[in-house]
Amino acid sequence: MSGPAVAAARVSSPLGDAFHVFDTTLRDGAQREGISYSVADKIAVATLLDEMGVGFIEGGWPGALPKDTEFFARAAAGELALTTATLVAFGATRKAGTRAAQDPQVRALLDSQAAVVTLVAKSDPRHVERALRTTLEENLAMVSDTVELLVGEGRRVFLDLEHFFDGYAADRDYGVRVAEAAIRAGADVAVLCDTNGGMLPLGVHEVVTDVARRTGFRLGIHCQDDTGCAVANTVAAVQAGATHVQCTANGYGERAGNADLFAVLGNLVTKLGLPVLPEGRLVESVRISHALAELANISPDTHQAYVGASAFSHKAGLHASAIRVDPELYNHLDPEEVGNDMHILITEMAGRASVELKAAELGVDLGGRTDVVARVVDTVKQREAQGWSYEAADASFELLLRAELAGSEGTVPVAPFELESYRVIVEHHAARAGDGAGDRTGRHVPAEVLSEATVKVHVGGRRVVATAEGNGPVNALDSALRLALADELPALAGVELTDYKVRLLAGHAGTDSITRVLVASSSTERPGDPDWVTVGVHPNVVEASWQALVDSLVYALQRT
Amino acid sequence: MSGPAVAAARVSSPLGDAFHVFDTTLRDGAQREGISYSVADKIAVATLLDEMGVGFIEGGWPGALPKDTEFFARAAAGELALTTATLVAFGATRKAGTRAAQDPQVRALLDSQAAVVTLVAKSDPRHVERALRTTLEENLAMVSDTVELLVGEGRRVFLDLEHFFDGYAADRDYGVRVAEAAIRAGADVAVLCDTNGGMLPLGVHEVVTDVARRTGFRLGIHCQDDTGCAVANTVAAVQAGATHVQCTANGYGERAGNADLFAVLGNLVTKLGLPVLPEGRLVESVRISHALAELANISPDTHQAYVGASAFSHKAGLHASAIRVDPELYNHLDPEEVGNDMHILITEMAGRASVELKAAELGVDLGGRTDVVARVVDTVKQREAQGWSYEAADASFELLLRAELAGSEGTVPVAPFELESYRVIVEHHAARAGDGAGDRTGRHVPAEVLSEATVKVHVGGRRVVATAEGNGPVNALDSALRLALADELPALAGVELTDYKVRLLAGHAGTDSITRVLVASSSTERPGDPDWVTVGVHPNVVEASWQALVDSLVYALQRT
Repeated sequence: MSGPAVAAARVSSPLGDAFHVFDTTLRDGAQREGISYSVADKIAVATLLDEMGVGFIEGGWPGALPKDTEFFARAAAGELALTTATLVAFGATRKAGTRAAQDPQVRALLDSQAAVVTLVAKSDPRHVERALRTTLEENLAMVSDTVELLVGEGRRVFLDLEHFFDGYAADRDYGVRVAEAAIRAGADVAVLCDTNGGMLPLGVHEVVTDVARRTGFRLGIHCQDDTGCAVANTVAAVQAGATHVQCTANGYGERAGNADLFAVLGNLVTKLGLPVLPEGRLVESVRISHALAELANISPDTHQAYVGASAFSHKAGLHASAIRVDPELYNHLDPEEVGNDMHILITEMAGRASVELKAAELGVDLGGRTDVVARVVDTVKQREAQGWSYEAADASFELLLRAELAGSEGTVPVAPFELESYRVIVEHHAARAGDGAGDRTGRHVPAEVLSEATVKVHVGGRRVVATAEGNGPVNALDSALRLALADELPALAGVELTDYKVRLLAGHAGTDSITRVLVASSSTERPGDPDWVTVGVHPNVVEASWQALVDSLVYALQRT
Repeated sequence: MSGPAVAAARVSSPLGDAFHVFDTTLRDGAQREGISYSVADKIAVATLLDEMGVGFIEGGWPGALPKDTEFFARAAAGELALTTATLVAFGATRKAGTRAAQDPQVRALLDSQAAVVTLVAKSDPRHVERALRTTLEENLAMVSDTVELLVGEGRRVFLDLEHFFDGYAADRDYGVRVAEAAIRAGADVAVLCDTNGGMLPLGVHEVVTDVARRTGFRLGIHCQDDTGCAVANTVAAVQAGATHVQCTANGYGERAGNADLFAVLGNLVTKLGLPVLPEGRLVESVRISHALAELANISPDTHQAYVGASAFSHKAGLHASAIRVDPELYNHLDPEEVGNDMHILITEMAGRASVELKAAELGVDLGGRTDVVARVVDTVKQREAQGWSYEAADASFELLLRAELAGSEGTVPVAPFELESYRVIVEHHAARAGDGAGDRTGRHVPAEVLSEATVKVHVGGRRVVATAEGNGPVNALDSALRLALADELPALAGVELTDYKVRLLAGHAGTDSITRVLVASSSTERPGDPDWVTVGVHPNVVEASWQALVDSLVYALQRT
């Protein structure tokens, strides 16, 4: 994932460049209320999308947002190794009345080193005149100048025709002229965008058919979900000849969101028979959809088409026996094609096959031990019923797998340390009146907030008591634990907590809820290795964090 | 909602009986995992659907489910007074080899006293032979016999052709013969059902067009959402000539769900220009959608098309000023048409225009005070640079806005309470060795985990010290604070914490990280009001939670 860029083996779908699966989760998806990706998140999201097999990953708007600029810099420096996907930078055409080469925003696109650039252009004459406040001709020149400059610098360019469908309704020709300006200047694809999301499928089909017939250009489609039809509109555009689809994971996006990548892929591959992904990738849909939900800190939609935990669950009692005899009569496709399962309760998500696949992926040799696989499936079911989720916590899953394997061999894994107790104290003392600004509830008054943790552990035959302060209870606990273990387990000095996520499950009345914590860790001694993620579940956030922290350290020790 | 049946004035849509909006939330929608309506719930749901203006409400399957039998009995006894809708009973055709008049399930349909009956019939020959285990001819006789009996008893009959589209793919004629058997026997509508939900809109359009052309029958459509296209498929069927749409509120239903009533209505009325609801009802969409979510005990989907709280939210700062000038350029329709609002998200890119729009939305009169707007923009920028985010925390933003406004007027808002200090303790004591299973790190050993909080506050002129336990540090702190405030601020008893989210920002090295907490709260005393969301940011998760909790309580007090 980092270090000098290694030329990874490139993988392509059977359709190759003839069909583009273009993901814009990191750019347009991040417009969803509540999503705020860190640069590390962006790298993790891009890696998952690459595993899904998409052809293009739009990573953000370098030059406009500092985090995006940093993301492209770190990707170019080798922190992101993509195998199927090409990274794409998003940006706008030059400003009116300027030269493209001198537009700092256009320069930032070149500086991002992305091989492909998606340029957004106004294609509705009302937007040109009322929002951009320039002439229709100058807008065309802005498009052709900018495309020409980027193509001249060796970039591949896709043009997003913003508000295309609304523009087409008002004026059938102007948007087409914008597309012509771009294609003549060297752009590869003219992407028709339903930016306001007000279209319906038959209308999209008609417009795409007309534009394809009139221009012969390679067309793409980008749909928002304001009519609840983004997926259908995207598919209808493909049926009308579009060969480039812009989607976001789980449909994340502004307002009602975008076309959901997983539903679009399911429909294109299984309904239209278009092999738009590399072999063997569609089956990753459920895993990757859920992992991306975790990274966005959004609960997966249990009823999402194709990938929802309930997408193939049958409740209707009248069908139960018939379903057992003839499952194909009651499912629109075999759920395994997308990595889903028909017997869905969340506890039954982990089948034997996925455990075996996962073990192979993690490099754990189960040696054909079907009894171990069965026990792991049982344990996962039990744990998931209690709120655990291993979908984004491979390291915890690997520990569970190895523990079951060791148990089956009659050996008990020796724990590197044993907890007797911990205590965490957080204290807040308001500063004295007049010490600072802020209202009198103490919200924004500078206050002293202290966290202190004491742990008592048994390690290397000794009982150790250690106390540490921290900037929060989990940090204090982490520090105290490391302090207690430092002498006996010096390898832990290189383990660093890089991310920490908390989710409250069973969303009613905080008091009854279960807390799930995900901790991502990395090794300062092995900077090239990927982060590892562990999970803890408990009604108490400190205890759930403790569990995930302990898993993280045990995992680190086991690897060394 | 109850009492003796009053002959309410009947209301109809401008299209009258020429177009049926048929809701099946109470029958097919209740197949969704987790939904379990009581009879009282069913009466409340039907009342809301009637307020929405649907033409038909399928109430359940009398005779098959005791709750449904009771619901129809209580409705017939006058507990349900409908003004636009007609109540419909759902049931199956007679069993093979029996007489309709003697089939107890058919009798129960008559006994329900529903004026309209939806009969479900197999229309895929494979289902007839393999699931029903009868002949294709007997199935036709079952349909015509049952329809004839019900029509003879004065009932109006709609026929649901189960698995019609899959059947059509296998045999273009058999499903049409089933429809013919029903229509000849007196049924009014042949409803084509995509029971497995595997269709796409162009395919639905083609099949409906073909069946309409071949039969001339009045056709209906019923779509499941397994391809994510149920809404689009329903609309496409209408565009092909169907004049009866079966939907469920918020798309509730088995697997991926059904066609969402609110999106279908929004599309039919605002996109196709079909006046399928009585005048003035579409504007009820948001209210009724959310109320129905409450009754189903499911959190409303904030990103649902038309009715989601975020369905018209704009985040992209670059558009905010343009949106203010020309809102119709950036929305696919005026949100007020469906009772929604154009929310503006306050983000990193917030400008003055966004703040002004947001203040107007929150009902805070800035009275043209551009100095206040400028100061709010500055404060938001500073805060956001420190990790605050107001885009999901309207209540905290409103407090900030009001504080700046008050400050500018030389008044200092009086805080309802003042914090002196708090202390939170979390303790974990491992159970003794041998007490339980699990590895020796204590991860899965049953352990005692205790949380206790003490707060010292000044409220109503008194100094109050209170201590409480909780199932986690934040819960303990929340409980202690409420305990301390209970006597002086009894209004807070009705405030309930409904959701709690934690996010670690600046994703490097846990120790340097900032924690952002979002707390959602609701009022048990004002159950119809939306939840309010507050935010806290601090390196310490307990302190960040404290800030969000305090904002939540201050906001609640300010409203009362």
